[in-house]
Amino acid sequence: MAEQIEPISRMQQQLARLPGIGNKTALRLAYHIASQPEDQVRELAAALWQGRKAIHYCSVCGNYTVNDPCPICSTPERHNGIICVVKDPRDVAAMERMHEYKGTYHVLHGILSPMNGIGPDDIRINELVERIEKEQIKEVIMATNPDIEGEATANYIARLLKPRGVLVSRIAHGLPVGGDLEYTDEVTLSRAVSGRREM
Amino acid sequence: MAEQIEPISRMQQQLARLPGIGNKTALRLAYHIASQPEDQVRELAAALWQGRKAIHYCSVCGNYTVNDPCPICSTPERHNGIICVVKDPRDVAAMERMHEYKGTYHVLHGILSPMNGIGPDDIRINELVERIEKEQIKEVIMATNPDIEGEATANYIARLLKPRGVLVSRIAHGLPVGGDLEYTDEVTLSRAVSGRREM
Repeated sequence: MAEQIEPISRMQQQLARLPGIGNKTALRLAYHIASQPEDQVRELAAALWQGRKAIHYCSVCGNYTVNDPCPICSTPERHNGIICVVKDPRDVAAMERMHEYKGTYHVLHGILSPMNGIGPDDIRINELVERIEKEQIKEVIMATNPDIEGEATANYIARLLKPRGVLVSRIAHGLPVGGDLEYTDEVTLSRAVSGRREM
Repeated sequence: MAEQIEPISRMQQQLARLPGIGNKTALRLAYHIASQPEDQVRELAAALWQGRKAIHYCSVCGNYTVNDPCPICSTPERHNGIICVVKDPRDVAAMERMHEYKGTYHVLHGILSPMNGIGPDDIRINELVERIEKEQIKEVIMATNPDIEGEATANYIARLLKPRGVLVSRIAHGLPVGGDLEYTDEVTLSRAVSGRREM
C-alpha cells in the first residue's frame, strides 16, 4: 500500500511542479490543504484556474492583462515616445512600484540565451522594432537584468535600433541604495566608478 | 493604478495563505502560474479542489481516506490488538514509510495545549477510549511528538487508559540514527542514557 492516499499524492505531484517547491514542501502543503475547509480550498483552486483563464497578453506591450490593450497602453499620456524594454511581466510590476516611470513598456518574454537555444526570433524583438516605427519612439530604455544574458540582449537590441535613429539607453549599474562598499563585488564597483556623475 | 492585475493579486492572496509561503513567494508563484499553459493550471487547480473533495476522515481511526473505513482499518490482519496514537494524518504516513508497524492507528487531530485552549474534548480522545473497549485492544503505542505538548498528551492518555487494563507504551527517545553525540542537546542525551538497553 502506498503511504499517501491518491488525492494527497496528486496534490503533491502538482504542487511540486511549482518553482522552488520540492517534494517535501509539496507534501506538507498537500496535507495542509486536506485539513482546510472545502470553501477555502475552492477559493484557492478558483483563484488559480479562473485567474489563469482571465490573463492574456497585451497585444501592444506583451504584459499580462485582463483587457486588451493593457491599462498602461490604454493611457494616452503614457505614449510619450519612451519604451522601457524588460524581460518579463514581473519586471513591469517592479518598475511600476517605483511610481516614477511615465512611458510604456515592451515585454520580451525571455532573454537571448544561445546556451539554451533562445535566439532573437524566440523573444519579442521583431514586435519591438515594429513599434519603434509605428509609435514614433524617441528613446528605448533597456531594463533587462544586469547579468550576462541581460547585457547581451540589451547590446543586441541596441545595435539593432540605433541605425533607426532612436536613442537606446541602459539602466545604470552601481551600488544598491543602502549597500556596503566593502561587500560589493569588483565588477559592480568598477561599473559604479565608471558610471560616476558630477555632484 | 495597482502594480498587479487583479487575477495575479487574487492568486497571490490565496497562495500566501498556505503555510511557509509569504507574500513575495506567493507573487513569484502567481507570475509563474500566469506563464504556464492553461492545461497545466487546470490540472493543478483540479488536483487541489477535486482532491480536497475526495478526502474524508476514516470513521474508525480518523486518518484521511477516500473510502470509509480507510485501507488500513479495512485490512483484517492489521486488527492485531495494537493501536498507534498519532497527532495527525501525516504522522500515519511517516509510520507507514517504516514498513514495520502492523497494527492500526488512531489520529487525534490535534494535541493537548492549554495555552491554546485545546483540551481533551477538542481532540479525538473519547473515540480512542471507545475503541479500546470495542476492539479488545491490548497495547496502545503513544507516538505523539517528543515535545512538551506531545509528552503531556501521551501522559494524559496513559493515565486515562491504564485503569482499563491496557498496556500503554511510548516510542523511545534518543539520538537519531546518524546523529552526533557532540551536537545532541542535554535532554535528548539524558533520555538516551536512561533508555539504554543491554547489547
